[in-house]
Amino acid sequence: MSNNRRKFWGWGMEGVGLTPQQQTNLAKRMESQFNLTGLQVDPPPKLEEIKLPKSKIEPPSGLSALCTNDPYERAAHTYGKSFPDLVRAFQRDFSIAPDLVTFPRTEEDIINILDWCSSSSIAAIPYGGGSSVVKGVEPDVGPGYKGTVAVDMKHLDRVIEIDTTSRAANFQAGIYGPALESALKPHNLTLRHFPQSFEFSTLGGWIATRSGGHYATLYTHIDEFVESLRLITPTGIVESRRLPGSGAGPSPDRFFIGSEGSMGIITSAWMRLQNRPTFRENAALTFPDFLSASEAVRAIAQAGLYPSNVRILDQNEAWFNGVADGSVAVMVLGFESADHPLDAWMNRALECCKDQGGVVPKQGEEKTQNQHREGMAGAWRDAFIGMPYVWESLVAMGMISETFESAITWERFPEFHNTVINETKKVMEEVCGGGFVSCRFTYAYPDGPAPYYSITAPSKKGSQLQMGAEIKSAISETFIRLGGTITHHHAVGRYHSTWYKKQRPEGFGRILTAAKKVLDPAGILNPGVIVDPLR
Amino acid sequence: MSNNRRKFWGWGMEGVGLTPQQQTNLAKRMESQFNLTGLQVDPPPKLEEIKLPKSKIEPPSGLSALCTNDPYERAAHTYGKSFPDLVRAFQRDFSIAPDLVTFPRTEEDIINILDWCSSSSIAAIPYGGGSSVVKGVEPDVGPGYKGTVAVDMKHLDRVIEIDTTSRAANFQAGIYGPALESALKPHNLTLRHFPQSFEFSTLGGWIATRSGGHYATLYTHIDEFVESLRLITPTGIVESRRLPGSGAGPSPDRFFIGSEGSMGIITSAWMRLQNRPTFRENAALTFPDFLSASEAVRAIAQAGLYPSNVRILDQNEAWFNGVADGSVAVMVLGFESADHPLDAWMNRALECCKDQGGVVPKQGEEKTQNQHREGMAGAWRDAFIGMPYVWESLVAMGMISETFESAITWERFPEFHNTVINETKKVMEEVCGGGFVSCRFTYAYPDGPAPYYSITAPSKKGSQLQMGAEIKSAISETFIRLGGTITHHHAVGRYHSTWYKKQRPEGFGRILTAAKKVLDPAGILNPGVIVDPLR
Repeated sequence: MSNNRRKFWGWGMEGVGLTPQQQTNLAKRMESQFNLTGLQVDPPPKLEEIKLPKSKIEPPSGLSALCTNDPYERAAHTYGKSFPDLVRAFQRDFSIAPDLVTFPRTEEDIINILDWCSSSSIAAIPYGGGSSVVKGVEPDVGPGYKGTVAVDMKHLDRVIEIDTTSRAANFQAGIYGPALESALKPHNLTLRHFPQSFEFSTLGGWIATRSGGHYATLYTHIDEFVESLRLITPTGIVESRRLPGSGAGPSPDRFFIGSEGSMGIITSAWMRLQNRPTFRENAALTFPDFLSASEAVRAIAQAGLYPSNVRILDQNEAWFNGVADGSVAVMVLGFESADHPLDAWMNRALECCKDQGGVVPKQGEEKTQNQHREGMAGAWRDAFIGMPYVWESLVAMGMISETFESAITWERFPEFHNTVINETKKVMEEVCGGGFVSCRFTYAYPDGPAPYYSITAPSKKGSQLQMGAEIKSAISETFIRLGGTITHHHAVGRYHSTWYKKQRPEGFGRILTAAKKVLDPAGILNPGVIVDPLR
Repeated sequence: MSNNRRKFWGWGMEGVGLTPQQQTNLAKRMESQFNLTGLQVDPPPKLEEIKLPKSKIEPPSGLSALCTNDPYERAAHTYGKSFPDLVRAFQRDFSIAPDLVTFPRTEEDIINILDWCSSSSIAAIPYGGGSSVVKGVEPDVGPGYKGTVAVDMKHLDRVIEIDTTSRAANFQAGIYGPALESALKPHNLTLRHFPQSFEFSTLGGWIATRSGGHYATLYTHIDEFVESLRLITPTGIVESRRLPGSGAGPSPDRFFIGSEGSMGIITSAWMRLQNRPTFRENAALTFPDFLSASEAVRAIAQAGLYPSNVRILDQNEAWFNGVADGSVAVMVLGFESADHPLDAWMNRALECCKDQGGVVPKQGEEKTQNQHREGMAGAWRDAFIGMPYVWESLVAMGMISETFESAITWERFPEFHNTVINETKKVMEEVCGGGFVSCRFTYAYPDGPAPYYSITAPSKKGSQLQMGAEIKSAISETFIRLGGTITHHHAVGRYHSTWYKKQRPEGFGRILTAAKKVLDPAGILNPGVIVDPLR
């Protein structure tokens, strides 16, 4: 049952999540898997249980109609949706809630809000859907600010213009995924950017965080779909030209894509679109082991076939999500087009798979129009969409449930993978007395994959945060030591900041700081994200 | 006949170019086309005719072995290969020659050179192959410097490592196109980046200028092939990680790609490679007019077929280059793969063409393995490779020969194109009493094409520079006014600076200046390019 209001403490709408029976089943499964007894599922926090700190700031009269200190809104804008966010919510700890939440309705409103923040030493935290899993929207800004304001973009949600000839559209940045796709559907167009957070995230958030979407190859990040963008900084509006391509100096767009609200607030963007696909080829295959499956992905990625889907699950990931029995790795493979039949594409990709021991479980089903919603692929799809609800129940019963994702070139992948798996098991053993780790590829490139690791481990209530942090730290250090990226598509936020700074070329770090000083001299925009706080 | 030394004044090797008979034929053709009489072909400059200014600086003793004030080297490092460069060379004007040319052999040499320049107020001009057509390597730095040094990267030309698994290789940046491809060939690998300048340009130059290469779709610029890069700045080395993809903050690589030597000198880069193609499908088609051909390109670009070649020539471009008779527009279409036959791809692309009135001239030849070297496609290929030699002969006979290239979204293209053609004719009429303009697409995207305009017009010897500049200015203003880019792949340099600054978001301009101050506080690197001189 949904109360038609978003949970202030977790994923999705109030009242939506696992049923009590599903939670009991999950708890029993955890008890069995980790030799635990008596797992209790804590009830989620209620608003009346939360003690919010007194709001330290008052809006100026001209902005008061846009601002609220309503407890629900302040609590709902305190956290993103990561493991430590959920743990703190279950601990009823909302001590870093923003002092105010503001809901601008126009660009002029944003300019006025940023002016006020700049002149009053108030940190402004841009807020899209709040789906960050990297503490990107958490108003944890250090002692240099008199207060914090969440700037919720949800009212800037207009479709400004649709250009069916160039297949592009100009949206305001606060538009949510479903509304964006609904607006395009009558024009037979689609952005086809479907991150796991799709339902509860915004275009501006996707661009600010270099979100990863629907396509497993070629158009993996939102980056490639941005034709131009417009953002408001404390020192003026920055707007790039609509261009299909350009060689005029370094790309302005690429500097702001991934700036995570540290340089300005994205208010609108022209996005490149696709026609809605009418041709589909889908298949699901099993492989004897994960490395064989990964070699098949490499062959397909290097063949120039560009499947929309070429995800693989290791034995654990397939088992944990009910896709297979734990003895095999699984691939879900898909091509789609609005223009042409895809037999030639799929047939060649299947050859690449067979070369590596890939098997289509039932003959005759290897290529269907709807298999992406059936069989192993369908099981994976359902599990993927429901995962955030499982995570919150795992946290509620005192488990640790975390994800780690990276990217690495192919020649280093086998050693990277083995080391990550071994070190993850080791740190879970040390910290938790055991744990479960699984891996999938979410995206693949000709020169390497983006491996995605999920862990589940028992912990002690009250120690969940610290135990989770120890594991997070160990695995993140391993990623960086082995040459990977700290994030392929989850972004940096405050959670990855330590490792991001190790990964980033030092000279580029200096450039980012210099750029922030130029655009945001008072240092009010999302302090601590991408750039260290200026105050 | 080649003297095995590069021309100091023009394209290619000494002794290579049009024969006297070819020049006479070209002159007659120009006379006939523009109602001229008695066109004289001036002889190219000889070194002994050039009065170089006295070199204003002396290298410190530790660097003197790397430096030369040899007249040939100074003259050869004065200009790039644009129309005004050729005109000034034919005028025997080398008054802005660099004071010294330095040839570092190691990164340490570059660090020492930049240290010397920083402490002595000397401008350092990074120099790859010198093929710039935008005054990108011209030591025209204003009065704030005690002297200028060209930093020729040709000795940093090593292949550092080849990774056949991830299909990537690490090259030093001074390697020339042919050497790079030769090193890859034994491994069945290729970068497939073949700009018109391929023979006489370097990897570092391609990256610094966002060079456009072989692929007409998808991988149009060098940008997509850069896996990581390393550059030396006056304040330290910047090196990014080898990653197939990342979402960790704004892309560091994308900030330096296109920085045109203003932020640092690229010394090496890991580049993404392809297997050498073994499957090819090629076709050449005629269309009743250019806009029909462009609609076919749009259909193909939006179909997700990703041809390696989908170039179109308007009637004038096809006629001028001997590809067709002037009554039809021409398309050269090609697919290539190292992995799979391409019938399905080509057949669908040909359908898109036929929908727009595209015709394959001779039945039975529409798809061949070698047609890219035969027929209309072959004629175009030969003309394309020989163009720089034609340009220098046109300049020698007092003509104006210039190119202008942009990119624009599809819905604006027809009006953009008509306006550009009309205004180009108008300004040529006003300035030269007439002229010839033609257009082709060099690259195409789902959301728009990159139209490329070539002009030829009569002028007066002695007034070539000024008359050319008037035309350049008018067409460039038109590009910017109509929303295009000032350059799709020729870069900015000093030639496009005025219009680049109009195109670039103002806030991003401030970022570039702030970044330069951080990396190059003495402002010695390629002053006036991308960022205004700091001194």
